[in-house]
Amino acid sequence: MTNQQIRLAKRPSGMLADDDFALTEEAVPALSDGQFLIQNEFVSLDPAMRGWMNEGTTYIRGVELGAVMRAFAVGKVIQSNHPDFTIGQYVSGLTGVQTHAVSNGAGIEKIRSQDVPPSWYLGVLGMPGMTAYFGLLDKGALQDGETVFVSGAAGMIGTLVGQIAKIKGCRVVGSAGSDEKCAYLVNEIGFDAAINYNTESLPDALKTHCPTGIDVFFDNVGGPTLDAGLANLARGARVVICGAISQYNASDMYGPKNYMKIVSARGSMTGIIVFDFLAEYPEAVRQLSEWLKAGKIKYREHVETGIERFPHVLRMLYTGENFGKLVLKL
Amino acid sequence: MTNQQIRLAKRPSGMLADDDFALTEEAVPALSDGQFLIQNEFVSLDPAMRGWMNEGTTYIRGVELGAVMRAFAVGKVIQSNHPDFTIGQYVSGLTGVQTHAVSNGAGIEKIRSQDVPPSWYLGVLGMPGMTAYFGLLDKGALQDGETVFVSGAAGMIGTLVGQIAKIKGCRVVGSAGSDEKCAYLVNEIGFDAAINYNTESLPDALKTHCPTGIDVFFDNVGGPTLDAGLANLARGARVVICGAISQYNASDMYGPKNYMKIVSARGSMTGIIVFDFLAEYPEAVRQLSEWLKAGKIKYREHVETGIERFPHVLRMLYTGENFGKLVLKL
Repeated sequence: MTNQQIRLAKRPSGMLADDDFALTEEAVPALSDGQFLIQNEFVSLDPAMRGWMNEGTTYIRGVELGAVMRAFAVGKVIQSNHPDFTIGQYVSGLTGVQTHAVSNGAGIEKIRSQDVPPSWYLGVLGMPGMTAYFGLLDKGALQDGETVFVSGAAGMIGTLVGQIAKIKGCRVVGSAGSDEKCAYLVNEIGFDAAINYNTESLPDALKTHCPTGIDVFFDNVGGPTLDAGLANLARGARVVICGAISQYNASDMYGPKNYMKIVSARGSMTGIIVFDFLAEYPEAVRQLSEWLKAGKIKYREHVETGIERFPHVLRMLYTGENFGKLVLKL
Repeated sequence: MTNQQIRLAKRPSGMLADDDFALTEEAVPALSDGQFLIQNEFVSLDPAMRGWMNEGTTYIRGVELGAVMRAFAVGKVIQSNHPDFTIGQYVSGLTGVQTHAVSNGAGIEKIRSQDVPPSWYLGVLGMPGMTAYFGLLDKGALQDGETVFVSGAAGMIGTLVGQIAKIKGCRVVGSAGSDEKCAYLVNEIGFDAAINYNTESLPDALKTHCPTGIDVFFDNVGGPTLDAGLANLARGARVVICGAISQYNASDMYGPKNYMKIVSARGSMTGIIVFDFLAEYPEAVRQLSEWLKAGKIKYREHVETGIERFPHVLRMLYTGENFGKLVLKL
């Protein structure tokens, strides 16, 4: 049996390139006692991956050169010498961009529910879902009826943040990069307003759509988008930094010129690192599943196919070409 | 009797210029019932003044063109039709850059203690002292034994922040712009280390002097100094933005490129607006007075003389020429 793998070949500078990765093949090794073999079916593409390609440690170590690219994946157990993992069991974990992964069970979650497709455990019931949930409700300390602005609103995390905020009775405004995405946010997802940052002045439009200011600003984008949100904070605003997707491939980082607005608004800026909430995942999965079942949360996947297309598909995240949670089917 | 006044003549762009202000004279008006006349003796020069010269409202309204420049001052009551303010009483308040001010008592504090010179109520026992006290202890939530980095450390607020942190048993590191100021901070004020940002690499020196990272970063400076501090945060760090003196006269604001370090450090950024703590001033004045009396806090004034020199003296703040709390003797 052959394991196809995407390995980190080079550290990218600026926008990642196809040859930053290499597709390699190796034989799947025989299992030792206590091990099992996962056949990965879906790999998750997440904005944080660009940071993982850099050298050094931020909140997590960078991927080593030559190593299999780190990724969340879901797959099925197809061989097992482990008493707790039986053949046919669906599992998720950081098993990497590869068709097969040998595991001893550490860091592997069993997917017990059959209510949703297994790939949803890479999205709404996985890391992005947990990020939206804890970022908004814990770090953002969202109160019923507040005004929420989420940037990168049509992305996986953005649509969830918006829907959770709507469930909490909030006014929800988002920014996205196309009229199609904005229409989707308002007409299908239930946002109160969506701003196309490519055709509208974001600072002006925020003033219009958030007349009492932004109480919780959930930022996935960074750059001038972050500045536009900062310029429209309400008193006591909480700015939750989730990501800076506009900046991950920039060679010169853009710092928010309006950071002093946090001071005059008597606000705060914090960030969400989802791994800090591991112990509380089950409660969030239960709540999100309930909302999904009740039709209060809609979820959209964008599926691409073929492990060899990984570099191209990952790049789609940063150029905004995907529409819905981006996963790669192996 | 003639009142000499400094009025805002123009909105500055970039570094303020002499002709942004005009010196005017007018007769002191006769007092109505319930009014008293203050002869100002000292005017405070504070970094926030540059922001007050801009149009529009941030945390406080900008000074109107043609109006007397806003400033804290201390002076003596020399005429009175007010039952609570008797001749000879020293008072402080936002009475502006002028030799005489007519007041009905609103916003005026009586200086009751004779233990310290009245001008100290513009510094250690005035707005800067309150800013240091509440910024460090309330917004910074300082814990005994933590590592504190204060930028602009040789300034009025910086020296106080450092000394309060030392009283709390903390490791205190500061940055300043000359070897003389750094020697003063270490040898006379009791800082554990002081870094001359003009001759040393601030990010590298912070790594050396804060080996476990910065727990509370009290920033008066902004710009690359803010970035250097952000690059060295400890887990759970609190960044308290007090000012951005390096940026007030800049035409293009420098945003902190390292703001994502707040996320990876699981930290927070907030700001201190001292007016929010008005109700708690008496407690802080009592505590600071006690520390002054016990010799635990040293205080240094830099006195310049002559109302006509106000523009030049104010500019000294932003070029770092002052050494100690800058006041203008009228």
